[in-house]
Amino acid sequence: MRSVIVHGTGQVSVDTVPDPTLPGPDGAVVAVTATAICGSDLHFYDGDLPFYPVALGHEVVGRVVEVGPDVRRVRVGDRVMVASVAGCGECRGCLAGDPVTCVKGGQVFGSGTGLGGGQSELLGVPAADFQLHVLPEDPAELSDEAALLLTDNLGTGWAGAQRADIPPGGTVVVLGLGAVGLCAVRSALALGAGRVLAVDPVGGRVERAVASGATAVEGPTVEAVLEATGGLGADAVIDAVATDGSMTDAFGAVRAGGTISVVGIHDLEPFPLPLLMGVYRSVTLRMTTAPVHRTWRDLVPLVRHGRLDATGIFTHTFDLDDAADAYAAVAARSAEVLKVRLTPGA
Amino acid sequence: MRSVIVHGTGQVSVDTVPDPTLPGPDGAVVAVTATAICGSDLHFYDGDLPFYPVALGHEVVGRVVEVGPDVRRVRVGDRVMVASVAGCGECRGCLAGDPVTCVKGGQVFGSGTGLGGGQSELLGVPAADFQLHVLPEDPAELSDEAALLLTDNLGTGWAGAQRADIPPGGTVVVLGLGAVGLCAVRSALALGAGRVLAVDPVGGRVERAVASGATAVEGPTVEAVLEATGGLGADAVIDAVATDGSMTDAFGAVRAGGTISVVGIHDLEPFPLPLLMGVYRSVTLRMTTAPVHRTWRDLVPLVRHGRLDATGIFTHTFDLDDAADAYAAVAARSAEVLKVRLTPGA
Amino acid sequence: MRSVIVHGTGQVSVDTVPDPTLPGPDGAVVAVTATAICGSDLHFYDGDLPFYPVALGHEVVGRVVEVGPDVRRVRVGDRVMVASVAGCGECRGCLAGDPVTCVKGGQVFGSGTGLGGGQSELLGVPAADFQLHVLPEDPAELSDEAALLLTDNLGTGWAGAQRADIPPGGTVVVLGLGAVGLCAVRSALALGAGRVLAVDPVGGRVERAVASGATAVEGPTVEAVLEATGGLGADAVIDAVATDGSMTDAFGAVRAGGTISVVGIHDLEPFPLPLLMGVYRSVTLRMTTAPVHRTWRDLVPLVRHGRLDATGIFTHTFDLDDAADAYAAVAARSAEVLKVRLTPGA
Amino acid sequence: MRSVIVHGTGQVSVDTVPDPTLPGPDGAVVAVTATAICGSDLHFYDGDLPFYPVALGHEVVGRVVEVGPDVRRVRVGDRVMVASVAGCGECRGCLAGDPVTCVKGGQVFGSGTGLGGGQSELLGVPAADFQLHVLPEDPAELSDEAALLLTDNLGTGWAGAQRADIPPGGTVVVLGLGAVGLCAVRSALALGAGRVLAVDPVGGRVERAVASGATAVEGPTVEAVLEATGGLGADAVIDAVATDGSMTDAFGAVRAGGTISVVGIHDLEPFPLPLLMGVYRSVTLRMTTAPVHRTWRDLVPLVRHGRLDATGIFTHTFDLDDAADAYAAVAARSAEVLKVRLTPGA
Repeated sequence: MRSVIVHGTGQVSVDTVPDPTLPGPDGAVVAVTATAICGSDLHFYDGDLPFYPVALGHEVVGRVVEVGPDVRRVRVGDRVMVASVAGCGECRGCLAGDPVTCVKGGQVFGSGTGLGGGQSELLGVPAADFQLHVLPEDPAELSDEAALLLTDNLGTGWAGAQRADIPPGGTVVVLGLGAVGLCAVRSALALGAGRVLAVDPVGGRVERAVASGATAVEGPTVEAVLEATGGLGADAVIDAVATDGSMTDAFGAVRAGGTISVVGIHDLEPFPLPLLMGVYRSVTLRMTTAPVHRTWRDLVPLVRHGRLDATGIFTHTFDLDDAADAYAAVAARSAEVLKVRLTPGA
Repeated sequence: MRSVIVHGTGQVSVDTVPDPTLPGPDGAVVAVTATAICGSDLHFYDGDLPFYPVALGHEVVGRVVEVGPDVRRVRVGDRVMVASVAGCGECRGCLAGDPVTCVKGGQVFGSGTGLGGGQSELLGVPAADFQLHVLPEDPAELSDEAALLLTDNLGTGWAGAQRADIPPGGTVVVLGLGAVGLCAVRSALALGAGRVLAVDPVGGRVERAVASGATAVEGPTVEAVLEATGGLGADAVIDAVATDGSMTDAFGAVRAGGTISVVGIHDLEPFPLPLLMGVYRSVTLRMTTAPVHRTWRDLVPLVRHGRLDATGIFTHTFDLDDAADAYAAVAARSAEVLKVRLTPGA
Repeated sequence: MRSVIVHGTGQVSVDTVPDPTLPGPDGAVVAVTATAICGSDLHFYDGDLPFYPVALGHEVVGRVVEVGPDVRRVRVGDRVMVASVAGCGECRGCLAGDPVTCVKGGQVFGSGTGLGGGQSELLGVPAADFQLHVLPEDPAELSDEAALLLTDNLGTGWAGAQRADIPPGGTVVVLGLGAVGLCAVRSALALGAGRVLAVDPVGGRVERAVASGATAVEGPTVEAVLEATGGLGADAVIDAVATDGSMTDAFGAVRAGGTISVVGIHDLEPFPLPLLMGVYRSVTLRMTTAPVHRTWRDLVPLVRHGRLDATGIFTHTFDLDDAADAYAAVAARSAEVLKVRLTPGA
Repeated sequence: MRSVIVHGTGQVSVDTVPDPTLPGPDGAVVAVTATAICGSDLHFYDGDLPFYPVALGHEVVGRVVEVGPDVRRVRVGDRVMVASVAGCGECRGCLAGDPVTCVKGGQVFGSGTGLGGGQSELLGVPAADFQLHVLPEDPAELSDEAALLLTDNLGTGWAGAQRADIPPGGTVVVLGLGAVGLCAVRSALALGAGRVLAVDPVGGRVERAVASGATAVEGPTVEAVLEATGGLGADAVIDAVATDGSMTDAFGAVRAGGTISVVGIHDLEPFPLPLLMGVYRSVTLRMTTAPVHRTWRDLVPLVRHGRLDATGIFTHTFDLDDAADAYAAVAARSAEVLKVRLTPGA
């Protein structure tokens, strides 16, 4: 089958590799119908995590083509989405819907850790009853685009907003308005925020957030947030960038007793945490990889009933064979390219 | 001054009574600019609580005309709204924003318990720094109508929704779509409900709820809810009617482990609680008088920032002098008359 | 095998019945080593639920003697305890550890609903990986007595205390000091209650609660609680009796804004709920059948690490063959007989 | 009056200074009967915060000797304890019991920020109705020692435990067993922890924790915690040291999805936060200065009813005049000197 492989910094190709086999008796093989590039894929593409070659991709919608003998719920032919993080499906952490806390260690697809890459024609999925969510047959009820977002970015934005401890009517700052940040804006509002102050230096991204209900922040972030909150600071800051600069802004913009919720990860070096200030102001810092399965319980009905908008995030579609072009487009981090879908059609 | 007095079943008149005096050194007197009739006023009008005469009214917006020497925050001339329930302002319950739990016992204005009626030209308000919320001078920032709803009905609907333990994306049933029920519909959606199933036998009321984002329930309530939830029942039922009939529907429609949140009170007789069924299905029953002051923390920013709609609930305005007509209109419980405002203008 | 069967009011015998077969491929058969009589068994014995004959018993510790082909975790020979309520083990409710909310409907063993009775030599257990908790081989780590309590009564007392919304340092009233009530006393203290006021008219029962850390209530309950709380009422009342009388006491003793948590069920007739008072005082009423599996997550470590005492509750042991005597002893509701164990040994 | 002043690193003297005057019409003056040295006082003594001279001390029990005209609740002659952190008493943060979130900025007594030092004969207290808690006249009901701990260290340990998100039955690690750490051990157990693993390199301190119910950790912390938790890590780590070393241990010892709660502050330099690891393992980091007033709601009943032990923490008493000796004793950080009281008696 064809599979997107990163071989070095900026070097992506679509290679022919062996088809995946069933990963154990509780596993399944999914024929990918749509997949997407995530910001975290860029850590490999940009050379931050130079462990090559890696089969990339962890956002997948497809059809089940094979199931193992221990699979009970999922059936061949089912239209499914795949959780970006995989767990054993049986431990206390997985039962709570959070494979990050799996006793065997949750793993992300397409990250060189043993699970295959989702930017391929086929994907092997262990513990399929747990990892796969069966979608309605009719895309009008839940589209491929919405489902792709549910495999990671929307769950990440949602979890980041939930863990931001937003009081009803509270003021939230979202730093970074890529796909995850935009999902966090929408999630914060769906969870009862009074207003969301949106920040992104890339021209055009703030406008998308404003169209989703946010308020644009003008000028330096910390000053603007303090101005908007009578000098107190925001109840919560969701940092979807996580550079030293954004984290410093977060600590400057959050109110005493407030929460900083980090869902991105940009700089891989340690951040110099202002512990003294954090203790004196009773700040909570939450760092989060989405408990994808748990977010589905909330998000599937919210999206299906139209309470949370999952449209307008994908801006481009490429054929899987053009993955190199797609990666180059995403890596440019322009305002036009927010989120890219790959279709291994044809 | 003029004041609306109920003298017996169906007997309301606007009488001239002595002006209120300052209720203690921490009190204030408010000149009423707008007041409203609440469903609970009808308990006196309909004869359920035959303790006559009673000066009615507990929903008031006005201007402060006098303050006692111990008042620190509120000033003469301030545009204010008055909490429908009054507390001492100093005990643990009041500090938590809930005068229902006041150690001295919270009291409702206009209920014959010592506090004056708000459907008057003037109202004496004890513990004014606690009971009064200073409004922005410009009604465009927070209208009289929104403020009137914040004194009771919107806070009640909000508290009813908050105490309904709605999971994000959950299914909520709202029984009774008067002003409080409609506020509960909007509150449930603002708090992250996936869908709200709205029920009211009065023609036309369901349409208003649908316009607010709810789904109309067709046919018998319990059957319809079970049908909509795959036989499981709703995560939460908000009962804004509280008759034996509505409560029976609530127990039939709620899922095992779910919550029934009662914010109305219609029948004053005890309800025959199905305790055996409640225990076997682990049902939570919450009964609530709004902690008005606490709800302001959430609701004032939500309304001001446009996240919660407070319009479209008042359907009629009467001059205070025409209170008898106003009461007759409300008591008819028609679809046209949802909520009535009285203005003691002129 | 031998099995305790109730044939009518006060008529219990130990009959020879066919051995249970494997209840499906995910089921197991357990050889009972210890079982116990629960207060709820008396509904059948006393004639409140006259659906005879019924094989009784839902509190079981034993050894696995057979497992179906789909059982993954539990093995023949394992020392196990059995959850008193059984669920499918796969739905969202079961995954959350609460078979009461099972989509297929949770069922109690030994209640005539299809599952066998545990006061027998053998018990068939469906969804064995879910229903069975494997115990340490050494009873010194977790005794049969502790495990029997974990199958129901301790979980019920714990759930009742958890759902009583006890603030740290708060005052809790426990009505009824049978095995469940005594477990609720200990649970409330383990969960941070400041004091527990214990009530039971049966002489001697209060003393056991006092030995567990509670304070005895002298005289009429409501007056005594108001006296002890400066007239405010208790933060929480746990009602482990649930008669009209105890419920009326609960409503009289709870503070405004407080919670009544019902874990017993005595009268099967509806309770005349004072809805008006409940709404005016914002009372929460929680009714609960224990989510046994979920309570194990909390209670197994608490009991094993000695943080929650599970001793001193069983007062008598009978041979299974003497079940009629055992039931007569329990039904007398004397102070001496708190909890009775049956051993189908020999 | 006499007052403890730090003039430079290791230079403490008891100087005669002017008596404090009433800090505004809502203030009071308290005659100190007992005060204590806190670990945070050592930041000045050790030279980490070289802003000399500073009048030290923020843990005070005493008698009110003067009140301003706006004080309503507290009276001259009352036996009182003083919150270590002072707020305005009127804003939303203060009403919630947390002066750290005071809109005017909470301030610590004795830290050179405008409020006086409590290691003196007299202390001026603003917003006295808020800052002072009136104690029972009889020390047998609440001793000076218990009250001194309630002004800071016990509230800090309690808040640290509360914010550690301890699941019932969970495993907690406490790093650093000074007075705050020991209070955290007791608090964690009172809040339902299954076991507390206690760590302190200073010989003898672990023994005190074990006597309070903790389990001693042998050998390197991270390895020992992983061993004790089957490789998963602890549900929560309370770090009462906050050096780079302890924080690194905390990140190594906490489980995926767990919480690190920092209540000490030792190194004033930024800590190199492992953000990548934190995000991949969904770790929450809470930093906390105690919301002292709020903790009183929980702790006063818990201590008075004997549910939380406040004894055995003070190991030495010095006369205020011997403050230099007292500081030298504390600064040595030996096992014998856990907590020192100063009495400005005579």
